[in-house]
Amino acid sequence: MIHTTSRVLTSDLRGHIDQTVSVSGWVNALRLQRKMQFVILRDHSGMAQVTHKRDGGPLEAVLESLTPESAVRITGRVVDAAQVKLGGLELVPESVEVLNLAETPLPIDEHTGPEHRLDWRFLDVRKRETAQLVFTVQTTLEQGLREYAMEHGCTEMHTPKLMGTASESGAEVFKLGYFDRSAYLAQSPQFYKQMAVAAGIDRVFEIGPVFRAEPSFTSRHATEFTGVDVELSWIDDVEDVMAFEEQMLAHAIAKVAEVHGERIREVFGVEVAVPETPFPRITMAEAQAVLRAGGWDPEGVKEDLDPDGERRIAAHMKEQTGHEFAFITHYPASIRPFYHMRPADRPDLTLSFDLLWKGLEVTTGAQREHRSDVLLKQAEDKGMSTEPMQDYLNIFRFGCPPHGGLGAGLGRILMVMLGLDSIREAAFLFRGPNRLTP
Amino acid sequence: MIHTTSRVLTSDLRGHIDQTVSVSGWVNALRLQRKMQFVILRDHSGMAQVTHKRDGGPLEAVLESLTPESAVRITGRVVDAAQVKLGGLELVPESVEVLNLAETPLPIDEHTGPEHRLDWRFLDVRKRETAQLVFTVQTTLEQGLREYAMEHGCTEMHTPKLMGTASESGAEVFKLGYFDRSAYLAQSPQFYKQMAVAAGIDRVFEIGPVFRAEPSFTSRHATEFTGVDVELSWIDDVEDVMAFEEQMLAHAIAKVAEVHGERIREVFGVEVAVPETPFPRITMAEAQAVLRAGGWDPEGVKEDLDPDGERRIAAHMKEQTGHEFAFITHYPASIRPFYHMRPADRPDLTLSFDLLWKGLEVTTGAQREHRSDVLLKQAEDKGMSTEPMQDYLNIFRFGCPPHGGLGAGLGRILMVMLGLDSIREAAFLFRGPNRLTP
Repeated sequence: MIHTTSRVLTSDLRGHIDQTVSVSGWVNALRLQRKMQFVILRDHSGMAQVTHKRDGGPLEAVLESLTPESAVRITGRVVDAAQVKLGGLELVPESVEVLNLAETPLPIDEHTGPEHRLDWRFLDVRKRETAQLVFTVQTTLEQGLREYAMEHGCTEMHTPKLMGTASESGAEVFKLGYFDRSAYLAQSPQFYKQMAVAAGIDRVFEIGPVFRAEPSFTSRHATEFTGVDVELSWIDDVEDVMAFEEQMLAHAIAKVAEVHGERIREVFGVEVAVPETPFPRITMAEAQAVLRAGGWDPEGVKEDLDPDGERRIAAHMKEQTGHEFAFITHYPASIRPFYHMRPADRPDLTLSFDLLWKGLEVTTGAQREHRSDVLLKQAEDKGMSTEPMQDYLNIFRFGCPPHGGLGAGLGRILMVMLGLDSIREAAFLFRGPNRLTP
Repeated sequence: MIHTTSRVLTSDLRGHIDQTVSVSGWVNALRLQRKMQFVILRDHSGMAQVTHKRDGGPLEAVLESLTPESAVRITGRVVDAAQVKLGGLELVPESVEVLNLAETPLPIDEHTGPEHRLDWRFLDVRKRETAQLVFTVQTTLEQGLREYAMEHGCTEMHTPKLMGTASESGAEVFKLGYFDRSAYLAQSPQFYKQMAVAAGIDRVFEIGPVFRAEPSFTSRHATEFTGVDVELSWIDDVEDVMAFEEQMLAHAIAKVAEVHGERIREVFGVEVAVPETPFPRITMAEAQAVLRAGGWDPEGVKEDLDPDGERRIAAHMKEQTGHEFAFITHYPASIRPFYHMRPADRPDLTLSFDLLWKGLEVTTGAQREHRSDVLLKQAEDKGMSTEPMQDYLNIFRFGCPPHGGLGAGLGRILMVMLGLDSIREAAFLFRGPNRLTP
């Protein structure tokens, strides 16, 4: 079919009064009255009313056959109509092309529970403005992160997700058949971004999938999610990494606030506040002291913070500094990976941090140990077998610069920024232990 | 250690004559003479000469202990020295900090073969300016692609790489254990980007890893590579997709030419020519006729083009049109997936294309069949079982708009653009049937 008019978005109809245009979209609602037929047509820019007076003709029959969510292209005249609530205009149709008729009834509606909505995620996202906005915001957020990273010397890398050996610990890694051998899915780009640093890539930036075979069923865990990774060469200390991250986040959040702040306020009812830098910092030891003085004494969590502890310390920091973000620094070596650098005078600690935003962990980072002998000793102290890591360990033998970096979860940042209940809402298609479809 | 001077890049030393600065980098070369010690220090911006007159002091001993590729931080005075070939200046060291002493000898040198160089990829990339430049260019290329896509209404999506069922055909898919069941690695974001279209995401853009379990050992195949995917809703026909791609590529190539054209010419000896749009198009039937008239008659390749056919038809198009790019259109239905739309009057063909650049396939695209009944019939005609694809087929039941898209290989684009011999040079860490490390 040749179209003599090109597509106009519903949000642009005001500029086409008294012209004949085509709009394409979904049937958001149908009101078929005795004398009149009304279609509310929705596209990604908004909605418009299509008004047809019954005349017994073919157009009437086509409109009568429509169903909610059918995909249609409607050509008609744009008429200024002050009485129409939807933009004060209507489209008087001349032709209606049914591109894909939706079956009835739809498999989900406003009463459908969250798990069943995930089964029909495409319809759920299509019909909810909140869901649509998540991905619009995600796009701008990524642009903001990337902009900062590129302006500050990063190279965008794509490191392999297929590894010959399980990276950091065998337990949480997916294993697959790889021709006549086995491969593993990368839990993070950790080893490879360090390899890039050793390869002379001065600053590494990567956004890509990471895979965790953890049987976690919380609202903040997924088995596959989008990681934002940075690795910086020639740093003086871990402070350089934290300074980079707070500036990068402040830049990206400012961009989101500028572009979407108003719509986020309307749709999600939350304010995107641009954080001031530097973000406040507190050592893990101080955080523990504060929490324990406040009565926090969870079972089984001795050196780390549990989610309740994270929320409490974030509340404390907010009270003390007015800031939504908080770096927790100097995690004990016992709960950090072997490759985190340790202070010369405190081998029980690491030069590492987590970043909390409104009490949720959104980033882990550290200076890495780049001295081969120290690194080997730290691996041995953790009881690790160094043989499978030989390719990784080799990078420290031939002039590896001092470096450090961070890994952030894109979904977690979105979750906090938009006040989402669950990480499931921050991914297009969530993956969890019980969720591998659609 | 507290540094009283912050890092200066070797390329910026000219602005610091007679000042004391610190430079950080690798020992590119050492010349230890009887009276003088020279170090050529390399960082990602260039090189500089460090000149020290032997005095029997501790600095002399440190310089004497250096090895090629060691990572060092050198603090010293920048001296204007017209006799020094390298930038007409030298650094007279005051202190030398050995951050990571490289073992000797290095495991690779200029005589090392390509496979062994891959084993030591981090050293190979670090020491070769060509390898470094690949990733710098990749970063700009991606920025250019993304810029065009975002300015033209795309949303950046991250679709799952873990699938519950093998996507297009079971044969070339990696399978993994997923808790108490099996999962598969996505061969492409195909089904999911179509799902995003059905979810009301008007235009989808994704850069991410794709996985192919093909035992291919050519210079242009990898088991994991970076895909650039686009999917456009509400298209009139496949021409909309081709027009989008040629504009997007022209924009991105222009950006690369502008930013790196001169350096690419120096380092790779190739000219990055910005292509004119539209790119020439030729149907597969015409292409076959031209090739067969020219004596092309390969065994076993009847309806498709083999790599030789691709090179020949590209040469023909170049001769006819002067253009390096060529769209081959209307591939036979027999060699295209079931979801490619077919012309109403030619059910033996598809509304699809490949894009060749200098004779190498860099993209496959098509309009997709969005009509549920037609799609089902096409799947059945191909002898496919529709049961495992139910989640995918569901998206066509409730108002799926007409749409089409493309999938391009980022490495292949780089390969052609820079005249690389192999896709192995276009990835940081290549993955092939025999290559899962480092």
